[in-house]
Amino acid sequence: MKTIAVEPGAGEPVVIEKPVPEPAAGEALVRILRVGVDGTDHEVIGGGHGGVPDGEDHLVLGHEAVGVVEDANGTDLEEGTIVVPTVRRPPASGSNDYFERGEPDMAPDGEYVERGIVGDHGFMAEYVTSPAEYLVPIPEELASLGFLVEPISISEKAIEHAYASRSAFDWNPESALVLGNGSLGLLTLAMFEHTLGYERTYCLGRRDRPDLTIDIIENLGATYVDSRETPVSEIPAVHEAMDFVYEATGVAPHAFETIEALAPNGVGALLGVPGSWEFEIDGGDLHREFVLHNKALVGSVNSHRGHFESAIDTLTALPEWFLEELVTGIYDLEDFEAAFENDDTTIKTAVEFSRI
Amino acid sequence: MKTIAVEPGAGEPVVIEKPVPEPAAGEALVRILRVGVDGTDHEVIGGGHGGVPDGEDHLVLGHEAVGVVEDANGTDLEEGTIVVPTVRRPPASGSNDYFERGEPDMAPDGEYVERGIVGDHGFMAEYVTSPAEYLVPIPEELASLGFLVEPISISEKAIEHAYASRSAFDWNPESALVLGNGSLGLLTLAMFEHTLGYERTYCLGRRDRPDLTIDIIENLGATYVDSRETPVSEIPAVHEAMDFVYEATGVAPHAFETIEALAPNGVGALLGVPGSWEFEIDGGDLHREFVLHNKALVGSVNSHRGHFESAIDTLTALPEWFLEELVTGIYDLEDFEAAFENDDTTIKTAVEFSRI
Repeated sequence: MKTIAVEPGAGEPVVIEKPVPEPAAGEALVRILRVGVDGTDHEVIGGGHGGVPDGEDHLVLGHEAVGVVEDANGTDLEEGTIVVPTVRRPPASGSNDYFERGEPDMAPDGEYVERGIVGDHGFMAEYVTSPAEYLVPIPEELASLGFLVEPISISEKAIEHAYASRSAFDWNPESALVLGNGSLGLLTLAMFEHTLGYERTYCLGRRDRPDLTIDIIENLGATYVDSRETPVSEIPAVHEAMDFVYEATGVAPHAFETIEALAPNGVGALLGVPGSWEFEIDGGDLHREFVLHNKALVGSVNSHRGHFESAIDTLTALPEWFLEELVTGIYDLEDFEAAFENDDTTIKTAVEFSRI
Repeated sequence: MKTIAVEPGAGEPVVIEKPVPEPAAGEALVRILRVGVDGTDHEVIGGGHGGVPDGEDHLVLGHEAVGVVEDANGTDLEEGTIVVPTVRRPPASGSNDYFERGEPDMAPDGEYVERGIVGDHGFMAEYVTSPAEYLVPIPEELASLGFLVEPISISEKAIEHAYASRSAFDWNPESALVLGNGSLGLLTLAMFEHTLGYERTYCLGRRDRPDLTIDIIENLGATYVDSRETPVSEIPAVHEAMDFVYEATGVAPHAFETIEALAPNGVGALLGVPGSWEFEIDGGDLHREFVLHNKALVGSVNSHRGHFESAIDTLTALPEWFLEELVTGIYDLEDFEAAFENDDTTIKTAVEFSRI
């Protein structure tokens, strides 16, 4: 079968032929339909993140997948069921408490591998195997967009943790700011508008009009903020202070400017993963602001099965026009390179391995 | 009656004679027993924090009080009941949602005054009046230490908010670090040891042995960390990464180094209130660490009635020897200046206005 993989240092994905995997006991065989591409894939390809499985010279890419159960292999799954696989798996050393209690997303370094990212092959293959417990069934009508369940689950978790941090008091957020107009930022902006009930939403980017993402932002009813004109720290003066800031840029100064962008009692969810980056801050002002206005910052990575299940509901609730505009390309295996292009006309792409 | 007040710019407290206040409808008259002194009082005296009530030329100090109801004045209180007053009151513009729902601690700037700190006279007086709803009854046997209820309530709130931020997953903290060996730091260290059940606790200071606070830290079963030898960011390497970091130094770099001191999934509660303070950070490393290890920082200020009620339980649970060593001096009104001395032999002091 064909897989899309990257060899360390190559800097671009290639097709690698591999045998169709055999499911072990407790595993099902899944025929892959579509696999989305995101910023993490680009980081893995570029060598800035992730790593090949022990003893291998390549990593099969892909962690945003949707497939169909081809061989249930004695598990509780039914053949023909559409499923989305979760991403984290126990490390070679075996399972641990985080997996036992269904919270692999809270496992620290060394206590997990991530399919398609670090230490385990991903889902960009015609067939994959997985323990049934890591395959989340979704309704058949969501099959074509099922590759969005994983990225939405990332935001489900971040939002759950952010709300938890505000659960000790009566919090009634009305304004939300998304930092970053990539596919994750736009999906989250749509959640703030359509499933979380925020009254006023904003999305920060650095694009000139006309631009696809600005059109989507405005069609969602949100306000576009150009970071070249309005730095994050000045957003309260220019627009308003935000009850919720969702950071998906990986621009490290944004993590700290978020403290200034927040309204009293607000929370910032941080999701970016920058490299080393030294800069000066007025740490005294930020510290005081943090304390005197009861602000919170919450870092969040990965997601667990419960977040995938919430993401299915969210995907159902998002408007069709939005999802159509968000997905700018679905490419056959023969044209897979096109799915990895990343210009201003690309928002979200996926590679199609097979059809229902 | 005698009060202890400060005039802006004077730099030291003085006794000011004022008439005994008359309780308005809904208010009780309280005879003050003792009022504690803390770092905020020193900041108010120094002019770095707080402010006199509108139209006045002085501020009566004191926000950590315990008293006895002298005249219930038709309220639900009973004369002779020992009470601790909360600190925040509605501003001159009138009440607001935060007060209506019993969460004045979440009110932003301008939506409150603070007795003895900003905009309203404090409790360092022979008598004070207060709406009954802001007077929290405590058991008579706690009367002598009742001035510790307010500072403990500050930590009750910070800890509640920190735990809330970790409530979206199964969090089992074992290690706690208190930054700061002042009275609030030591009270909180004792809470980690005696009411919160942490297995390993640490307290950071910058004192040479022999030292009263180091003795208390070690007698509590905690490890003393000298910040001159072990910077906050190096604590994980020298000791261990911490599930909970409680910052009570007001040293702004500590707020950011806390991210490095935390274990995966850990939380830092920030309570210090520094002034402007510019410095360089590796914001990229901190941002990445925040995200990849699901860390959280929570700012916390003030406390509400529920936190005072929890603080009463905590005060009951703390060991007697600890409280005796913590309180280094109770001074009569004639010797009040001694309560404001702040050297290495002072931990916690109070001024005694009257006895039961």
